[in-house]
Amino acid sequence: MNTTTITVSIVGAAGYSGGELIRILLRHPRVRMGRLFAASNAGKPVGDVFPHLRGRLDRIFEAFFPDAVAGSDLVFLALPSGEAMHLVPTLLNHTVRIVDLGGDFRLKDPAVYEMYYKRPHTAVELLQSAVYAFPEWNATELRTASIVSNPGCYPTSVILPLIPLLKAGIVKPHGIVVNSLSGVSGAGRSASTELSFAEVNESVRPYKVGVHQHTPEIEQALSLLTGTKTTVAFIPHLIPITRGILTTTTAVLACPASESEIQEVMQRAYANASFVRLLSSMPEIKNVANTNFIDVAWKLYERNDQLIVVSAIDNLVKGAAGQAVQTMNLMFGFEEPEGLQ
Amino acid sequence: MNTTTITVSIVGAAGYSGGELIRILLRHPRVRMGRLFAASNAGKPVGDVFPHLRGRLDRIFEAFFPDAVAGSDLVFLALPSGEAMHLVPTLLNHTVRIVDLGGDFRLKDPAVYEMYYKRPHTAVELLQSAVYAFPEWNATELRTASIVSNPGCYPTSVILPLIPLLKAGIVKPHGIVVNSLSGVSGAGRSASTELSFAEVNESVRPYKVGVHQHTPEIEQALSLLTGTKTTVAFIPHLIPITRGILTTTTAVLACPASESEIQEVMQRAYANASFVRLLSSMPEIKNVANTNFIDVAWKLYERNDQLIVVSAIDNLVKGAAGQAVQTMNLMFGFEEPEGLQ
Amino acid sequence: MNTTTITVSIVGAAGYSGGELIRILLRHPRVRMGRLFAASNAGKPVGDVFPHLRGRLDRIFEAFFPDAVAGSDLVFLALPSGEAMHLVPTLLNHTVRIVDLGGDFRLKDPAVYEMYYKRPHTAVELLQSAVYAFPEWNATELRTASIVSNPGCYPTSVILPLIPLLKAGIVKPHGIVVNSLSGVSGAGRSASTELSFAEVNESVRPYKVGVHQHTPEIEQALSLLTGTKTTVAFIPHLIPITRGILTTTTAVLACPASESEIQEVMQRAYANASFVRLLSSMPEIKNVANTNFIDVAWKLYERNDQLIVVSAIDNLVKGAAGQAVQTMNLMFGFEEPEGLQ
Amino acid sequence: MNTTTITVSIVGAAGYSGGELIRILLRHPRVRMGRLFAASNAGKPVGDVFPHLRGRLDRIFEAFFPDAVAGSDLVFLALPSGEAMHLVPTLLNHTVRIVDLGGDFRLKDPAVYEMYYKRPHTAVELLQSAVYAFPEWNATELRTASIVSNPGCYPTSVILPLIPLLKAGIVKPHGIVVNSLSGVSGAGRSASTELSFAEVNESVRPYKVGVHQHTPEIEQALSLLTGTKTTVAFIPHLIPITRGILTTTTAVLACPASESEIQEVMQRAYANASFVRLLSSMPEIKNVANTNFIDVAWKLYERNDQLIVVSAIDNLVKGAAGQAVQTMNLMFGFEEPEGLQ
Repeated sequence: MNTTTITVSIVGAAGYSGGELIRILLRHPRVRMGRLFAASNAGKPVGDVFPHLRGRLDRIFEAFFPDAVAGSDLVFLALPSGEAMHLVPTLLNHTVRIVDLGGDFRLKDPAVYEMYYKRPHTAVELLQSAVYAFPEWNATELRTASIVSNPGCYPTSVILPLIPLLKAGIVKPHGIVVNSLSGVSGAGRSASTELSFAEVNESVRPYKVGVHQHTPEIEQALSLLTGTKTTVAFIPHLIPITRGILTTTTAVLACPASESEIQEVMQRAYANASFVRLLSSMPEIKNVANTNFIDVAWKLYERNDQLIVVSAIDNLVKGAAGQAVQTMNLMFGFEEPEGLQ
Repeated sequence: MNTTTITVSIVGAAGYSGGELIRILLRHPRVRMGRLFAASNAGKPVGDVFPHLRGRLDRIFEAFFPDAVAGSDLVFLALPSGEAMHLVPTLLNHTVRIVDLGGDFRLKDPAVYEMYYKRPHTAVELLQSAVYAFPEWNATELRTASIVSNPGCYPTSVILPLIPLLKAGIVKPHGIVVNSLSGVSGAGRSASTELSFAEVNESVRPYKVGVHQHTPEIEQALSLLTGTKTTVAFIPHLIPITRGILTTTTAVLACPASESEIQEVMQRAYANASFVRLLSSMPEIKNVANTNFIDVAWKLYERNDQLIVVSAIDNLVKGAAGQAVQTMNLMFGFEEPEGLQ
Repeated sequence: MNTTTITVSIVGAAGYSGGELIRILLRHPRVRMGRLFAASNAGKPVGDVFPHLRGRLDRIFEAFFPDAVAGSDLVFLALPSGEAMHLVPTLLNHTVRIVDLGGDFRLKDPAVYEMYYKRPHTAVELLQSAVYAFPEWNATELRTASIVSNPGCYPTSVILPLIPLLKAGIVKPHGIVVNSLSGVSGAGRSASTELSFAEVNESVRPYKVGVHQHTPEIEQALSLLTGTKTTVAFIPHLIPITRGILTTTTAVLACPASESEIQEVMQRAYANASFVRLLSSMPEIKNVANTNFIDVAWKLYERNDQLIVVSAIDNLVKGAAGQAVQTMNLMFGFEEPEGLQ
Repeated sequence: MNTTTITVSIVGAAGYSGGELIRILLRHPRVRMGRLFAASNAGKPVGDVFPHLRGRLDRIFEAFFPDAVAGSDLVFLALPSGEAMHLVPTLLNHTVRIVDLGGDFRLKDPAVYEMYYKRPHTAVELLQSAVYAFPEWNATELRTASIVSNPGCYPTSVILPLIPLLKAGIVKPHGIVVNSLSGVSGAGRSASTELSFAEVNESVRPYKVGVHQHTPEIEQALSLLTGTKTTVAFIPHLIPITRGILTTTTAVLACPASESEIQEVMQRAYANASFVRLLSSMPEIKNVANTNFIDVAWKLYERNDQLIVVSAIDNLVKGAAGQAVQTMNLMFGFEEPEGLQ
């Protein structure tokens, strides 16, 4: 049994994903909490920013400066979009390993990055070496990776269920329709009238339809992981819950398939996965809230030659901090579920 | 100007749709409130069952008996599924006109009814004469109809936006994927652990995937109204709001189409519709809550040869009581929006 | 019957109270919509700021300038705290009547204003002439008032039930404990992390305990209306709903009282009030949402010589725009409930 | 260090408190899960009743029979009101220790029980020996107790903050006004129209005002723990959240007190308490959700000689299952916070 401990720091520790990282790492038996960096909250006690952590961690958020990561074995970046690409080159000089929870290193093609993120990429030379990784599919690469790009919340919910189905040739790689519903914490912790309770409550808001930056991430990951160019229509909706994503994906059957065949393909793919639960009834967000599970079920809709796949995750756990810690476990040779149950 | 007034009774007046009918009819200048029938709530004052109506209507719910509708020009049926088909034959003997808000007279084929509603139909002889009607498309039939079958809540949100697109040949009649999100009032007002706040809140629940009784209703209506056999995958989800439906429909383009072409088709179809709003930004449920509007927008997703259509309604108003009153207005020659603004 | 019509303008028309005023006035048979002024939203169509009003009112919000109110019979001010006192002196030069929905003219003592609102009052000379008025108690003053100060949302819920009880000497004027629960729209429509859905949902937040600016308003109004100096402890809480206030007030009985005595006192006070409903069961917010009603009930807790009074209002209607229109009706000699049912 | 392990069974394991007990005990290093008994859910896998526990515990709920507890060191009873008093006499024959999470053994006086619970007590002979215990105040009694009565959710939130204040003579034992707001899970997991999402959402519901069964529990506990007969007005409200209680208590100062004096009294009382957090800002439910903490703050309202005390707990954790496990830890000599962080 690996009983090493590592020192872990967080840049962007005062946002929702950062707070979730702290909460998880506090219970992780192999982790010493390193430095906690924040921008506008630098100088404030952790308990003032996250009152639920009062009495759990007596620390002050610090302003980031690169030398501060010396002594850390791993740094999590939980930053607003566009900031990580400025930090990573510097951090690498300190021979620290990095897991970036943001979107800066997910897309391999800088032109696609610029098209969807509306800014040029400033660390293009690192895009190829950054490892975009799902713990369930990329455990080997993770062992030695220096820069890991943690998948996005929506993409996690979409990609994990589709990989086995596409690899087995059960569904076609085109004509895939993805409807995702996300809680409000997915939009981060900034002041905005659009995210105010009175605007979000008792409503549903489709947004960035056809132009969301997770579309190319989903397509790139599915294409690489399955070896077949795959396209999707991705339609995100904001719903009045705090945490969680439910994704309903409709794909066209490549050829007639039976329930048992699909069951077998999925079970074989995830037999040893600690956090993928294949259900015979429909997933619901409340069942995965505050956990690192992804719940998956499907309905063979033979009448229209379609397969309907439903998945649910907690966007801040399996969709962000939890998956990042699961990744960390594999990077450092710990048990995959350590600290996550 | 038509200044007639009519007497209107409601059977099933103590459910959510019934309460909404009362609320709307109280403000309708052409309506005298007739009898209000309820089952388990018979004998109770209206204000005890609907405390928001206290001081607005001093009435007692009555147990239904057929002769009681004598003197009513119109009877709304707002009953649990399977009850209206037992009442309608009797009501017709009293030469009263009927608008049924439930599902008993929506499907023309009794075998399909039995397959989806899990019971045999007991008034098969009336299925053909019942007029399934959208005020926007069937105004002429409504003028003389005796039995009107008011469309379902989900189908209203799906069908109205699709009719012009299918009629104009812009989208294909197969491969249509419909994801609908509904508030909890759509499930009616009965005791159920599944609908309790603690089970619904902070979650999303896909249900009856591929087997919902609104699937054949949508397909039948689209096929009849557009003249082309149409099929859909219909995926309903329960979300934690009280009122409203948001529907996201993805269809395959029949041929390359331009934004302006689609705009023109939709505007021509609904130029004179009082309650169809075509938007350039995405619909949200809160904007139609407590109104009879259906808000519609779309996104041409040329990259995948798809059209994404989004619509929002209040399930109890445009999806039930409001549309029923709009229908009543046309049946009796009133202005279409009378009492609904 | 008074069939005059008046022209009504709104300054601050793009906030929540402003939007509610527009919605109500659109249905008011005696009102022509005058000018709609907004600050940051000037230049935008009404339907862009309030998508629920699309198709109902084809107008553009204008930047305010004093001459623009010429031709208006009445101007509603629905402004952030501290702005009305700068406008009112100018508006008076245009001989227009004013109803201020904000707090600037509610407190008669400028020192108290400064203590609670944290700024000096700049129109002290108008504080005495401004009429702080409840339509139920101050109808006579309203007929001729030039400047009307509309009571605050919390105070409305507290004061209306207490007036008859204090006047009749049933409860003591000291030791009154007021716990109020308010929906988020009460905080107005500005960007704030504190009001974001993810911060408000699944929680309750007591705030400004003992220092809320509505405390002196409640005490002043109760003292003036009942003729006895009255003090309260006022404890406001933010709860995860959009609209509505529920207030639970506990007062000490001045002498032994019977249920029937209290019932008689309350019924006599509000026998002719259009919008005060005295209930025998507990008020709930949902029953008054979107209406101008205040629902009131009480529980005589003889065991401890206390009376517990519960009231519910919609903070944007009876607590703001609705009460302001009710006031307008009395100012101009219309029927009190006109346009409000 | 005590490294014993114990076997723990649960009667009523399929309700909300039972599910929470399972969730907590699964992580407890000293606990072997014994038998899980349920009534209507007997025969069902745990994962079907609690889908969030799928993959965590592979067990079937059993129908209860007394011999089944042989081999258990401790039995938790998480039953509907009125059932535990029938079971406890039998269980005692099996020399098992018992923690009852329900209300059957909280009140010492059977006449008071009957008045508030509306049924006669059937195990009156056990009322005196049952130990009503807060881990923070009754650690010694717990070590040897056979039957422990776990305090109610509301009473926990009310009593813990008041004990030190009453003991120190800072506030008077009469005239205490308690307003509590509870999430819906507090009402248990049964089918009820009143608890349906559509009835609870966007509303607040005061209920059992002046007659709630937690009133005598609060008064009895405060009187016993402080040595002075104490009375309260207790006003519970149902609010639209799933979990959590926020309680605002207003008490009259017994004599002039200073902030620092109150601070000192409270800090001295809870200096070594693992789960009582004394805050300088107001508690909010979200900060204690899913934890065993009670957050407490107060506001000295000298103007009216009052002290306003606010507390927040998770009703299912500190208000039920968590406090029960904290109690178990003390009964068996484990560290108090074991398994609860």
